[in-house]
Amino acid sequence: MADTTLDLTLDAAELTARLVDFPSESGNEKPLADAVEAALRALPHLTVDRYGNNVVARTNLGRAERVILAGHIDTVPIAGNVPSRLDEDGVLWGCGTCDMKSGVAVQLRIAATVPAPNRDLTFVFYDNEEVAAHLNGLKHVAEAHPDWLAGDFAILLEPTDGQVEGGCQGTLRVLLKTKGERAHSARAWMGSNAIHAAAPILAKLAAYEPRTPVVDGLRFHEGLNAVRIEGGVATNVIPDACTVVVNFRYAPDRSEAEAEDFVRDFFADCDIDEFIVDDHTGGARPGLTHPAAAAFLAAVGGEARPKFGWTDVARFSALGVPAVNYGPGAPLLAHKVDERVRASEIPEAEERLRAWLTS
Amino acid sequence: MADTTLDLTLDAAELTARLVDFPSESGNEKPLADAVEAALRALPHLTVDRYGNNVVARTNLGRAERVILAGHIDTVPIAGNVPSRLDEDGVLWGCGTCDMKSGVAVQLRIAATVPAPNRDLTFVFYDNEEVAAHLNGLKHVAEAHPDWLAGDFAILLEPTDGQVEGGCQGTLRVLLKTKGERAHSARAWMGSNAIHAAAPILAKLAAYEPRTPVVDGLRFHEGLNAVRIEGGVATNVIPDACTVVVNFRYAPDRSEAEAEDFVRDFFADCDIDEFIVDDHTGGARPGLTHPAAAAFLAAVGGEARPKFGWTDVARFSALGVPAVNYGPGAPLLAHKVDERVRASEIPEAEERLRAWLTS
Repeated sequence: MADTTLDLTLDAAELTARLVDFPSESGNEKPLADAVEAALRALPHLTVDRYGNNVVARTNLGRAERVILAGHIDTVPIAGNVPSRLDEDGVLWGCGTCDMKSGVAVQLRIAATVPAPNRDLTFVFYDNEEVAAHLNGLKHVAEAHPDWLAGDFAILLEPTDGQVEGGCQGTLRVLLKTKGERAHSARAWMGSNAIHAAAPILAKLAAYEPRTPVVDGLRFHEGLNAVRIEGGVATNVIPDACTVVVNFRYAPDRSEAEAEDFVRDFFADCDIDEFIVDDHTGGARPGLTHPAAAAFLAAVGGEARPKFGWTDVARFSALGVPAVNYGPGAPLLAHKVDERVRASEIPEAEERLRAWLTS
Repeated sequence: MADTTLDLTLDAAELTARLVDFPSESGNEKPLADAVEAALRALPHLTVDRYGNNVVARTNLGRAERVILAGHIDTVPIAGNVPSRLDEDGVLWGCGTCDMKSGVAVQLRIAATVPAPNRDLTFVFYDNEEVAAHLNGLKHVAEAHPDWLAGDFAILLEPTDGQVEGGCQGTLRVLLKTKGERAHSARAWMGSNAIHAAAPILAKLAAYEPRTPVVDGLRFHEGLNAVRIEGGVATNVIPDACTVVVNFRYAPDRSEAEAEDFVRDFFADCDIDEFIVDDHTGGARPGLTHPAAAAFLAAVGGEARPKFGWTDVARFSALGVPAVNYGPGAPLLAHKVDERVRASEIPEAEERLRAWLTS
């Protein structure tokens, strides 16, 4: 790599191309983190902190509100799609164009060009978002330096087609185990059938009616589903065990404890032998009723949509900071070999954020 | 092997020991089949036929009834338990002592010592009973020479503790497949859940009440059970397929077609996408109301029991010959390394059969 500096006077699309040409696959973010840190330290209106390959920069203007702009600097593995290429139709191709170096470019441009925002700003650049959750840099910062992430409202600049996607639903996975007693299937009455014992569980799931509550202005949509079922010993044996794996996706007006209580109550009369919580991450409120968020929504326009899947906004929510996703690029193109972004979307997103932060 | 002849003047227990010392694991029955054939051909009152390593010998006295005595000559693999050993308590140890060279010894003794039975006799010695069904020698004889197996009543000399076990239940295995449509579990309403679609199947199974009909004097006990269930793609995906494997064990008063109809009707309202018959073998009536069988039961004493599991008697039943299991040895000792038989049981079984066939 010839040039390891980042020129923040480039426009957001050019800066995106520069970032794409600066490989930073998960686990190899250090050179890019160094460059981001150096570029930010050159800006006198920002205080810069670093933890591992995570960089946090803040204004300290004593404003009434503080807004966080966050993005991950890693990408999925490069698949012959670096360096970037701008085609004649104005489309920028390459690994990370969409997910999410265009969003990172917007963060850097705002950091460089808005020295006196109407709200205090915190810029978070973190590593290892595309790999196992325990490696996630935002998680590490939240655990080691939660004060660095203090704020009233957070925006994750993930690709959302330039629409606001608010909050996220929680996800709880439980294993429901039923018990029986083995016997030869020719003498079934000598045993008891654990698969038959799972009948009430499936009956309840089939009859489940999802709740669709409005939370901070967005309508969420819950779901309770068997995602796996497994039972059986041999084709001539009455099975002594059956496991139903259930996934509960729940709206962010429930706490984790409330979600777990709901599922336990829901299956309370099903004669379950073991109820095992296998995985659980809480949701995130969109916080769109907060004044900063409402002003943001008015500034960027469009109609906010709820985010049904789990995303890193939940980490902010866990710290008490409502959060949304908002960024250039189509989410469906993320992780594709033909990943791309319309170059004009990037300065557009930048302009909308600037308008909100300088009005 | 020094001596490849069989001396049918030995008593039944000694002959059993001799047969055990004559290894005949499944697939390697030829030397023993040769010895059995040679010993039977030396008996002038019998007509002997051979097909592969299966030997069939018959009297042709023009009696009003014909009775078949059948046994397999193969054993499970020897596990250091050959040659045989008679201990000081009169127990004969070794591979095949129980399953079923003691029964074969009884067949051979009757063949040698009852030249003028009150019913015509057919002796069947067959190979490959302990391995895959398609290798079974009785099946091969039934297909190639069904006339060799003609008769009014058949006794399989499998170990039954010297009790008559009548007939056997049929066994039908079906795969019931439900269909759904995949979706991310965070947006479950975009798909449809194939595991939930299996709820009515399990509900019907859980509510099933078995029939316990009396057939030819024996009370059978049906069973309809899920023996396996499988569904699921990933823990965040609504599953598009689920399979319930159901095993129907049915009394021998149902034909195979009737059994299949019953199961189809039973699940008719369950919205099953595919109903696949995976395996099906019919049952066998015990035929204990037949005069020859009734006389047999009176002669051997005790109370006949129904056989719930599937056995080779079903092959006779398919040819229109009612059949029972009756032989020395404890069925629970079959296939064990410490397989054994009380030596005195063997001539006892022989004497009871002789009494019936000469009264």
